[in-house]
Amino acid sequence: MSASRSPVRQSSVRAHNLALVLQTVANGSDHPSRAAISATTGLTRATVSTLVDDLIAGHLLAELEPAPRTGAGRPAAGLTLAPDGPAGLGLEINVDYLAACVVDLTGVLRHRLVTRADQRLLPPAAALAALSELAVRALAAAEADGLVIAGAALAVPGLVAPGGLVRVAPNLGWQNVDAPALLPTLAGLPLTVDNEANLAALGELRADGGEPTFLYVSGEIGIGAGIVLDGELYRGGRGWSGEIGHVTVFPDGRPCRCGANGCLEQYAGQEAVEADPDLAAAALGIALAAVVNLLDLGVIVLGGGYAPEFDRLRDGIEAELRRRVLTADLAPISLRPAVLGADAAMRGAADVVIRGVRDDPAAWLARAQAV
Amino acid sequence: MSASRSPVRQSSVRAHNLALVLQTVANGSDHPSRAAISATTGLTRATVSTLVDDLIAGHLLAELEPAPRTGAGRPAAGLTLAPDGPAGLGLEINVDYLAACVVDLTGVLRHRLVTRADQRLLPPAAALAALSELAVRALAAAEADGLVIAGAALAVPGLVAPGGLVRVAPNLGWQNVDAPALLPTLAGLPLTVDNEANLAALGELRADGGEPTFLYVSGEIGIGAGIVLDGELYRGGRGWSGEIGHVTVFPDGRPCRCGANGCLEQYAGQEAVEADPDLAAAALGIALAAVVNLLDLGVIVLGGGYAPEFDRLRDGIEAELRRRVLTADLAPISLRPAVLGADAAMRGAADVVIRGVRDDPAAWLARAQAV
Repeated sequence: MSASRSPVRQSSVRAHNLALVLQTVANGSDHPSRAAISATTGLTRATVSTLVDDLIAGHLLAELEPAPRTGAGRPAAGLTLAPDGPAGLGLEINVDYLAACVVDLTGVLRHRLVTRADQRLLPPAAALAALSELAVRALAAAEADGLVIAGAALAVPGLVAPGGLVRVAPNLGWQNVDAPALLPTLAGLPLTVDNEANLAALGELRADGGEPTFLYVSGEIGIGAGIVLDGELYRGGRGWSGEIGHVTVFPDGRPCRCGANGCLEQYAGQEAVEADPDLAAAALGIALAAVVNLLDLGVIVLGGGYAPEFDRLRDGIEAELRRRVLTADLAPISLRPAVLGADAAMRGAADVVIRGVRDDPAAWLARAQAV
Repeated sequence: MSASRSPVRQSSVRAHNLALVLQTVANGSDHPSRAAISATTGLTRATVSTLVDDLIAGHLLAELEPAPRTGAGRPAAGLTLAPDGPAGLGLEINVDYLAACVVDLTGVLRHRLVTRADQRLLPPAAALAALSELAVRALAAAEADGLVIAGAALAVPGLVAPGGLVRVAPNLGWQNVDAPALLPTLAGLPLTVDNEANLAALGELRADGGEPTFLYVSGEIGIGAGIVLDGELYRGGRGWSGEIGHVTVFPDGRPCRCGANGCLEQYAGQEAVEADPDLAAAALGIALAAVVNLLDLGVIVLGGGYAPEFDRLRDGIEAELRRRVLTADLAPISLRPAVLGADAAMRGAADVVIRGVRDDPAAWLARAQAV
């Protein structure tokens, strides 16, 4: 831990300590008591008690029934993240479906709504209006559970600029779509818009918890990737990294919606997987070998529509990796389906909201009091 | 700046302050006086004077002639990095040449020796013996200048494991070559072995000084790349990133020495550039478009044998980038030849040694005293 030399203000000490206590409960495998938190954090018991009381009042922590008294003194009540506290709304628009989900502070999926429909037939405003309707149903379901939605995040299959402007989403046919402005239902809720593969990779990072460095590949009608290096999403210079769907696999091959020829998407997008899974697996293997040769990554996670197809694709991909990765004989490459399966992007979106609360509970408490 | 809470030992304070004073002189555009260094660093004048005296005695700093006295008091002598202090020995073995260079503490190239010869015909021990001879000549030339060689670094076109073991160098035909053991001439000198594109990228980063994020591509008989992100070389999980030469451009294309088909090297290696520069540029453009799509990098530097061929390759590469990079219309991609031209790898190797001294002058002073 590093310490600044400038004097620390009391309010920032409290914010730091609230986060510390919350993380201690969140990351502990058992349900720690106030005394155990004090021992772990080095904070005094009195300080811990005050902080815990604030976190309970703000519906971030809950007290479990105390264990039966076994000796002298007051029995220690275990603490847990509150399942009825703030929750995250995860939204996803993709080429052939709309999705919304609610994930509570403990990471449990509480509601999941998916509508299958080809979004390429609709103007952006109509597609986002349909997503708004789904969001309203999810919000109502969350309210009925007594949850408070802390914010929303939207996953889109395209390039997103700061502020949520979708610059290009080739498979939706979108250009410069101001997604936040077209989601009026969510007015008042903080909204993040991000690339679907990025959000899915973040979701996978947290759900898996083991591997800090991996490539996440999201296979829908289009294909995107999230590059996670040492536990951090690598976003690139403008936030537009991971466009593996437009890596060339056959230079003079099929025309792509992006204007180029022979892009991976044309051979390994969801429709192509159904038409010819062997060619799809080979094309994926060629593009993934390029990633491994460039980035020296040891773990590849197949998500989105690839997760349920994993067994059909695996052998064909691995054959190309063995053939085309220079270090294949020296270092193993692990290929596995996403833990969150096809839901990774919307789950990752909801998780971004939850992480925001868990990383800065003081900000959430201040907001909750102000409402 | 972060501060540890543990007590700082006096010796580490001195080491820190020696580095601080040396960096202040190295990074300043003018030649600061002791008083100016005191003002910049916040150290007392007495402390600065002691440190400067130590750095001068160790041949790391030199005093310029004082400016003519214009008023009262002793005139302030400007300080500069010592051109006759420790120097770095940069070595390179590549498919068709051997090279050695000496770079002094100020970054000036003092000696440069290159022998053209096809190394593929030789066993590793013979190739490294020939490199040893070149190193001996470079060391003698440095000694004649009054320089002291602080260490050596060797650039190889292959995958290097910790300790300097060259696991694979496909274009040399090397497997598991213990390079340090085969360079007996350098016994006693600290030796680093690294991939040539990595060292060239580091050399370029320091020589250019402007761009913190770029892809450096080294075009020799083989092709390698160094990925520089936010001023740091991205090495990958095992240090084997940047193998762009084995990115597939034509899946059923020419067989490569690595065992795969259609690798970039077969179309854009130096021999291929001479045979068909247009196909080479197109193949390079296809592979570079994959890198930009994956990593969202805005700057590509062509070095090694590509630097002198830049004008012949540029248009063909840029045409493919425009066609195949998804964000080509949204964000410019800058393509330029390496500042250090074909010498980037050996210069980068020597620079690694120099940086070691500049980053930790206390260790150098201790070593110099011990000899």
